Amino acid sequence: MRTLLVLGGARSGKSRHAQTRAEAEAGALVYVATAQPFDDEMAERIARHRADRGPRWRTIEAPLDLATTIMAETRPDAVLLIDCLTLWASNLIFAERDVDEATAALVGAIGATRGPLILVSNEVGLGIVPDNALARRFRDVAGTINQAVAAAVDEAVFLAAGLPIRLKP
Amino acid sequence: MRTLLVLGGARSGKSRHAQTRAEAEAGALVYVATAQPFDDEMAERIARHRADRGPRWRTIEAPLDLATTIMAETRPDAVLLIDCLTLWASNLIFAERDVDEATAALVGAIGATRGPLILVSNEVGLGIVPDNALARRFRDVAGTINQAVAAAVDEAVFLAAGLPIRLKP
Amino acid sequence: MRTLLVLGGARSGKSRHAQTRAEAEAGALVYVATAQPFDDEMAERIARHRADRGPRWRTIEAPLDLATTIMAETRPDAVLLIDCLTLWASNLIFAERDVDEATAALVGAIGATRGPLILVSNEVGLGIVPDNALARRFRDVAGTINQAVAAAVDEAVFLAAGLPIRLKP
Repeated sequence: MRTLLVLGGARSGKSRHAQTRAEAEAGALVYVATAQPFDDEMAERIARHRADRGPRWRTIEAPLDLATTIMAETRPDAVLLIDCLTLWASNLIFAERDVDEATAALVGAIGATRGPLILVSNEVGLGIVPDNALARRFRDVAGTINQAVAAAVDEAVFLAAGLPIRLKP
Repeated sequence: MRTLLVLGGARSGKSRHAQTRAEAEAGALVYVATAQPFDDEMAERIARHRADRGPRWRTIEAPLDLATTIMAETRPDAVLLIDCLTLWASNLIFAERDVDEATAALVGAIGATRGPLILVSNEVGLGIVPDNALARRFRDVAGTINQAVAAAVDEAVFLAAGLPIRLKP
Repeated sequence: MRTLLVLGGARSGKSRHAQTRAEAEAGALVYVATAQPFDDEMAERIARHRADRGPRWRTIEAPLDLATTIMAETRPDAVLLIDCLTLWASNLIFAERDVDEATAALVGAIGATRGPLILVSNEVGLGIVPDNALARRFRDVAGTINQAVAAAVDEAVFLAAGLPIRLKP
């Protein structure tokens, strides 16, 4: 594994699977969090996840500038885990960033990594069409990012109930 | 097959797949229903499913005490089909039961079965994040139960359009 | 490939995958669109998709009478691409057509094709239960059509992030 996408639903075991894969690699462990604590529910979830990871992990926050962060942190003896692209998509929309440009920069960074890189993302397009236009926009953006990243990585899995289905290679 | 999890979306053919697998085994057929007829739509659906199964099946209702029911009914010459864990998750939440405790008891019962056991469950985490906190809680609980059960069973499949994708072994 | 179902979520790369598979076949390319431009968002999406396909494709609109259209257009030296069955399900419901009858006619047409036929459909049942009854009815109808078509075709794939998971054969 050089670059890996872990795709799945909410509570599908994505993050745990990604962490287990990361911890099986040699080297330092760097957790790149895209989450921002907008409310108490989110703040509590972030704190719980950080405690679950334990002290082996160093955490960096990168709600928007993912490509820059990857390029600054990637090195042969460190594993980078980006968790997750779906929140990043949401952050880009709220910050009114150019999503296509940010996605292209991320794809460029994936191709230029000097060590293992694991990206976690939600599949959000398998329910019925959302009522409101913003949710539809978010769903489109998240799906477009997933496709671009899946095409760029060496390996991709889809998690269901904690169990991986191989997408590639 | 000793223990099997059949996971899938609404109208993915989960129940039919589970019933076909159960009917291929030797022995009595016991259907453990977690559904409760809260409204007319649900009552009609329950009655239709019972008619679809036909007279070979004995039906037991177990909206909450699934582990106890499995331990009371399991025997080498009977196939137990639990349908479904998602409604059970919903019942636990509404009854304010301890979900972690109930899940641990279910996992214990799965490990202690004396005959074939098939569990049906919905994957509900692949749409966009629900607006309301209760739906998010339900989604978390359902996903956590699915992961625990998937880890405990011998075999798991994910159904899409009536066709199984193998998750394990 | 004689008949192929491409199933997946919103923005999962279904249409692109189906078009790539169609363009790999010899013969004329016929795009059977079930979409109807109810609003500006939909009209814009239809126009963008038509432009993306390019001039090799002939487009036919068939919002309701899919079986008739397939039987009129199928021939050994043309590839038919139906995109998509989920919008067709929605159209049938709004037009108050008999869904079971229309599905049976579609399954008959799939069995009677004289050349390659590719059908695109959304999986919509993997989120939480929708609040309103119409959305639940739509989800049931879409899932039932997917199961019937999946059973009728020679080949079926499930797309996630642009990557196919084999469902059959």
